[in-house]
Amino acid sequence: MTEINFKKRETVEQVEESTDLAPMFDENGLIPVVTTDHSSGEVLMQGYMNEESFRKTIKIGEAVYYSRSRKTLWHKGKTSGLVQTIKEMRIDDDQDCVWLKVDVKGGASCHVGYRSCFYRSIPFGPKQTNNQKLQFEEKEKVFDPKKVYGDAPNPTKL
Amino acid sequence: MTEINFKKRETVEQVEESTDLAPMFDENGLIPVVTTDHSSGEVLMQGYMNEESFRKTIKIGEAVYYSRSRKTLWHKGKTSGLVQTIKEMRIDDDQDCVWLKVDVKGGASCHVGYRSCFYRSIPFGPKQTNNQKLQFEEKEKVFDPKKVYGDAPNPTKL
Repeated sequence: MTEINFKKRETVEQVEESTDLAPMFDENGLIPVVTTDHSSGEVLMQGYMNEESFRKTIKIGEAVYYSRSRKTLWHKGKTSGLVQTIKEMRIDDDQDCVWLKVDVKGGASCHVGYRSCFYRSIPFGPKQTNNQKLQFEEKEKVFDPKKVYGDAPNPTKL
Repeated sequence: MTEINFKKRETVEQVEESTDLAPMFDENGLIPVVTTDHSSGEVLMQGYMNEESFRKTIKIGEAVYYSRSRKTLWHKGKTSGLVQTIKEMRIDDDQDCVWLKVDVKGGASCHVGYRSCFYRSIPFGPKQTNNQKLQFEEKEKVFDPKKVYGDAPNPTKL
């Protein structure tokens, strides 16, 4: 399979105004990725890709991230079945962030069992005090993570 | 004004399943932020907050980021007038990412002049070669960055 080559970043104009794909990876070799539901527009998750997972995502049309906790490529859905099929891929002005619009088989993207990882809101405004409480915006889980992941270690780090 | 206090991260259950706001900042003291247009759902930009800008955003209800290039708080729109008024704020399962739904005065969020920073798409699929070209999805700029920013240095780094 032909390897996707990223272009060398040479000028601001090239990066911002041209059709060259010249992504910037950070000091850990990663680029942040925002993933939204293609139908609802909801943000499902935010993850990271390294060069290899970025190339693989482009080639196979399914989201492949890099797991910082497991330090390995992470083809989303391989364990849970909740594969993310890419409908559109975008890159931002300075090419240091990727946006994926996806369809999710099974409807959920969050390892806790919710549709979106962003299932809680933060109240805001001048009346907020140091006692503010998050609010649950999704009331029910789509799946039971224990049934799907079994005893696999939880990726959340303290 | 009462200071917003972030809770100490003690257990995975507390972070994922409780109403405690216990965000995780990375080794540089930053948390990534995804900003979408409240009406269209479009991803406008991805930025970062430090603790101070996160507290300020909660209090004033307008997006305040931390500029990594300028190493300072960045109250979006203070120079350009394109202020982001927050309609909803969310946090993800492990509380290491924030999602802002905003209304943008003036309709644009990108320093290059486009509505969204993600104005180009990346073609994908098995037929892509190393000659692939980005596609412009926004055809016209909303504003002329030279008129708005004058000679201010371009934030894009190579």
